[in-house]
Amino acid sequence: MAAAPHHPFDPLTPDEISRASKVVRPHFGGQDPNFRVVTLLEPAKKQMIPYLEKEQKKQPLGHVPTRYARVEVAVPGAKSGNELFELVVDLDKDKVARKQHMKGKHSYIDADYMKAVENACLANEEVQAEIRTLELPANSMVVVEPWAYATDGMNDMTERVTMCWFYLRLLESSDANYYAYPLDVCAEVSEALQVTKVYRLPTKPHERINHEKKPFDRRRIHSTAASEYHPDLRPAPRATTKPYQVVQPEGPSFKIQGNHLSWEKWTFRVGFNYREGLTLHDVRYDGRSLFYRLSLGEMFVPYGDPRAPYPRKAAFDLGNDGAGINANNLQLGCDCLGTIKYFDAYHNTPSGEPLKLPNVVCCHEQDDGILWKHTNFRTQNPVVTRSRILVLQTIITVSNYEYIFAWHFGQDASISYEVRATGILSTVPSDIDVKERIPYGTVVAPGVLAPYHQHLFSLRIDPAIDGHANSLVVEESKPLPMDDPLVHNPFGVGYVTESHIVEEEGGFDLDFTKNRTFKFVNENKTNPITGTPVGFKLMPFYSQKLLSHPESFHAKRSEFGEHAVWVTRHEDHDHFPAGKYTMQSSGGDGLASAIEKRRKTGTAQSIRNQDLVIWHTFGSTHNPRIEDWPVMPNEKLMVGLKPVNFFTGNPALDVAVSTQDKNKSVLYNEEESKNSSCCSSRL
Amino acid sequence: MAAAPHHPFDPLTPDEISRASKVVRPHFGGQDPNFRVVTLLEPAKKQMIPYLEKEQKKQPLGHVPTRYARVEVAVPGAKSGNELFELVVDLDKDKVARKQHMKGKHSYIDADYMKAVENACLANEEVQAEIRTLELPANSMVVVEPWAYATDGMNDMTERVTMCWFYLRLLESSDANYYAYPLDVCAEVSEALQVTKVYRLPTKPHERINHEKKPFDRRRIHSTAASEYHPDLRPAPRATTKPYQVVQPEGPSFKIQGNHLSWEKWTFRVGFNYREGLTLHDVRYDGRSLFYRLSLGEMFVPYGDPRAPYPRKAAFDLGNDGAGINANNLQLGCDCLGTIKYFDAYHNTPSGEPLKLPNVVCCHEQDDGILWKHTNFRTQNPVVTRSRILVLQTIITVSNYEYIFAWHFGQDASISYEVRATGILSTVPSDIDVKERIPYGTVVAPGVLAPYHQHLFSLRIDPAIDGHANSLVVEESKPLPMDDPLVHNPFGVGYVTESHIVEEEGGFDLDFTKNRTFKFVNENKTNPITGTPVGFKLMPFYSQKLLSHPESFHAKRSEFGEHAVWVTRHEDHDHFPAGKYTMQSSGGDGLASAIEKRRKTGTAQSIRNQDLVIWHTFGSTHNPRIEDWPVMPNEKLMVGLKPVNFFTGNPALDVAVSTQDKNKSVLYNEEESKNSSCCSSRL
Repeated sequence: MAAAPHHPFDPLTPDEISRASKVVRPHFGGQDPNFRVVTLLEPAKKQMIPYLEKEQKKQPLGHVPTRYARVEVAVPGAKSGNELFELVVDLDKDKVARKQHMKGKHSYIDADYMKAVENACLANEEVQAEIRTLELPANSMVVVEPWAYATDGMNDMTERVTMCWFYLRLLESSDANYYAYPLDVCAEVSEALQVTKVYRLPTKPHERINHEKKPFDRRRIHSTAASEYHPDLRPAPRATTKPYQVVQPEGPSFKIQGNHLSWEKWTFRVGFNYREGLTLHDVRYDGRSLFYRLSLGEMFVPYGDPRAPYPRKAAFDLGNDGAGINANNLQLGCDCLGTIKYFDAYHNTPSGEPLKLPNVVCCHEQDDGILWKHTNFRTQNPVVTRSRILVLQTIITVSNYEYIFAWHFGQDASISYEVRATGILSTVPSDIDVKERIPYGTVVAPGVLAPYHQHLFSLRIDPAIDGHANSLVVEESKPLPMDDPLVHNPFGVGYVTESHIVEEEGGFDLDFTKNRTFKFVNENKTNPITGTPVGFKLMPFYSQKLLSHPESFHAKRSEFGEHAVWVTRHEDHDHFPAGKYTMQSSGGDGLASAIEKRRKTGTAQSIRNQDLVIWHTFGSTHNPRIEDWPVMPNEKLMVGLKPVNFFTGNPALDVAVSTQDKNKSVLYNEEESKNSSCCSSRL
Repeated sequence: MAAAPHHPFDPLTPDEISRASKVVRPHFGGQDPNFRVVTLLEPAKKQMIPYLEKEQKKQPLGHVPTRYARVEVAVPGAKSGNELFELVVDLDKDKVARKQHMKGKHSYIDADYMKAVENACLANEEVQAEIRTLELPANSMVVVEPWAYATDGMNDMTERVTMCWFYLRLLESSDANYYAYPLDVCAEVSEALQVTKVYRLPTKPHERINHEKKPFDRRRIHSTAASEYHPDLRPAPRATTKPYQVVQPEGPSFKIQGNHLSWEKWTFRVGFNYREGLTLHDVRYDGRSLFYRLSLGEMFVPYGDPRAPYPRKAAFDLGNDGAGINANNLQLGCDCLGTIKYFDAYHNTPSGEPLKLPNVVCCHEQDDGILWKHTNFRTQNPVVTRSRILVLQTIITVSNYEYIFAWHFGQDASISYEVRATGILSTVPSDIDVKERIPYGTVVAPGVLAPYHQHLFSLRIDPAIDGHANSLVVEESKPLPMDDPLVHNPFGVGYVTESHIVEEEGGFDLDFTKNRTFKFVNENKTNPITGTPVGFKLMPFYSQKLLSHPESFHAKRSEFGEHAVWVTRHEDHDHFPAGKYTMQSSGGDGLASAIEKRRKTGTAQSIRNQDLVIWHTFGSTHNPRIEDWPVMPNEKLMVGLKPVNFFTGNPALDVAVSTQDKNKSVLYNEEESKNSSCCSSRL
């Protein structure tokens, strides 16, 4: 990211990060603040709208919005071990503009603190005594995996409480898959790093917390070929896959300047922050405004095992962990194929210094098969174009799981958001004989249960369809009656579309049986050909809502899992559908509560022909299969956004036809391949 | 396709086609039979099962099933112009084994006959008189597009009746997009090529058949940039898309011998016929049987405009046209990228000679992003593998529309079936002023309406999950109650899966709100780790059912659009969910009727732990958008099949990790790209 001059949407530069913490530090007297967050406070939309318009028209920009940093600091407190403060720093004046004590709120997971929890846990005498009863094999190592405590009402959440799950590493390698050997020991650690509870986990179908202290069952030890994923610990891989390379002899079609990206009539700005990871801003096609901001708002992974203490497993991977902080360094991995542009990002160290996150976003093109084709059957002349897409991808690792998030841009002005779940299933110990079954999960190895869980994502879509006054239209396709004398449909084949415009904030469900389609339109701009408002439609991903009971903490804390499509009035910084602080939250901070509060207090505004925001909840009810073990082949979830009567025709009509001269495909020759030489005859 | 020796699943060779028609010809005395079909009659499953087993075990094959051809012949008849006969020819003995007069049935569309219809129509005096009233521009040309008559109960369907839709070609080029200028003249042509009716089409919202004879409105003539798709008729294309090539320096990973394909533990046989196009047989992974046969069973495209005569627009593109016959020659088009294997096929001429259909299937690999990844956060060591998929693709052109059908095979033993709709919307003339709206379509140009319609596909899945005795399981994910004293779920987070096994043939609907999952399992084979029956699950495509009224001919003729998932007992040659003869059908031949008949006559058999077949109906309610005009950017529909507790772990665990050495990605350098030279620094 360029040092300066920067765009108002650009993340803070390393220098700004240092300056912000320097400005903040004196506000904490003698204390040594733990800088949890030093990030850009995005400028108010009211200021950005005129700015972006001038920018688009290449006019003088005039007043540049004040540059602000948002800083979160944790300091030891009088009453609790960890007090959280939020400050806003004016970086133009190097001054604190606002300081607030976030009483009762917790910062996201502190990795250093979690390391200390692990150590405290393992060093604890009661824990060690418990481990001894396991009679573990020599040369094995106990691994403690600390997790945020998902509120269950059983504990005071004022201070941090950490759940410690125990695993066993049988092999010497640090990359051995310890999730293959979950132990039935569990511990809880307090804010002050005291181990407050040690107990045995339930391992039978209907068992409450278990007090039996059985030793580790050696019969559970299975072959490394079955339980390891690291190539050094496994048999040799298959050797049948021949190399596949992508070559762009004239380079890629994108142009990137700093965080500004232009590609095939698309332009937008790439943002990044510790929590949301990749964000996209001012997304336009052919200069026309489409989306002000696109981001993943939150994701929630609640487990469906009702046996205590498993209800404490429910992760807000953005709010608790941070999709930016946990983004993989893509350079090392060979995660992207072709001609790759990498974006770095910056987070901060606990002392407020810039911390580089290299290669957290990769950007590249990809061929996506045929874009459009027609052959006039009378002439037999085919015309075919291939679909080139632009991919922006990040990958996060959150303990055992990985999630790959990719934005795909099409030449036809369509956008896709693809989530892939991979990584390792969370496992718990089980002790059942052949005839028993634990109904809350799948046995993936002897003594190992992979519990049922859900993945729920909230995609935040801030449309700006040809401007900021948009409306949400819900359209359905309905058959005409066959026997109604007032309706001419004697053959019973007719159907029409019925639309209604949403007036108020709220949540909606999907219904494919009615072809229910959600469109964001600009009622002030009519398409000159179709005579209908210009718009974009959502291509949702159909998935089950949150299964947890509405009165459960899972439901109360997440909220967004209650409906598939939410619409709210735009508010600056309102980016988080489960609330700003999810760690040990008790609920009441999410979309549904905000909407309800506005209704009750009479502050709700119409969302018709206004600045609105859409939140699409989608995900998967993940009942593990053995094929997901020991590491899961990707499960794909895709959401799309497509123009509907926005343009005056196919926006990709001007894509050049596909030719062999450009594509240089190679004809496979059976005879040649039998002789083991490559197929070299080009078409 | 190899001449000989052939596999029982191999399509007929050119020689066999000649021989079959030679054997048949004498059976029609002095008449000159029009050979409509000369195709393989696939051997009975009862015979193939032991054959395939021996083949798989590399044992002597013993008895090879008799080689049969199925021949359909049309001859002029006494009562009607066109009598259809079906014969079965024993190719081992060169004898007719069976001959049947298919009374009242019509063969699929005869392209030569349709050409004759066009000519008869244009030559007809009444038609010419009607055209004159249009006062068409000089140098324009009327184009007649004949369509099969979709039964509407208004005509005797004993003989062929053809609907003629009229369009205007304004430009001289034969590739001009005449769909841009639909005319309101319509004609019907009889079996004997007589024009029986000429009239004007409805062009107003509530108009019945129109008798006003308005001239062609010159104001409708729009720019070629808006209405043409052929590059020779349009402005220069965008020049921003840089080349993207796929290189496989060691060739592809597949091995092909004749029609047998092996790739990354997959093996299967490629079949092809005039009607279904591409069929896949004996699909196995790592030698284990998965699917006996995979194919597209039918597709139905009914239009939703109730104004007569538009209810006659409803195309069975397989049964009426033939996905094999209309498959594109892929070599010419640059339809496939990379190292490509093409398969040819053979149809027959009207005189029964072999007719080569070159390059109707292309086969190649594709990179599909990351397959699986995990980074141990403690060591920061990432392990990532990329997903290589195998693609088998065909494309059909059916008048204005194109459909791209692609099978994708994954290294994780998953299969996807992807349909892309592209080509040109069907158009009808409209004559509305700015304030009027025709509620049955979208205006895509002045005077041009693209009517609402549906695309409904039926994917026929013949599972053979570790053998032929399979069951259909319907599983749902259900929350446990929070307040039931008998159920331990105090935190309200628990959920379980509930399954029931289907005993009888029938149709089922999708329900994502319950995470309803359809699995094909083998109850006789228990997974040694999970303790559950081995199986595969369907990843359906959620779409609206057929909108036409159940009493409409559209519904009665298609039947399969009534439910999303059908299950029937396997019967040889039972491949067509809307019946074997769809041309001018009246209904009663589809899945629902067959199931009902078996129930009523007491011949229904259990489908539990039996040889069953699944039919997945999916599609799209297509309410055109202007972006679909003049040629549609692809609309994708994807269905998946994935193993569920079939293997003992991730079947792609042994895929080699992704490395830069193999992948040779290129780092994009902003500075270099500014200097317009390619990015050459490799990672």
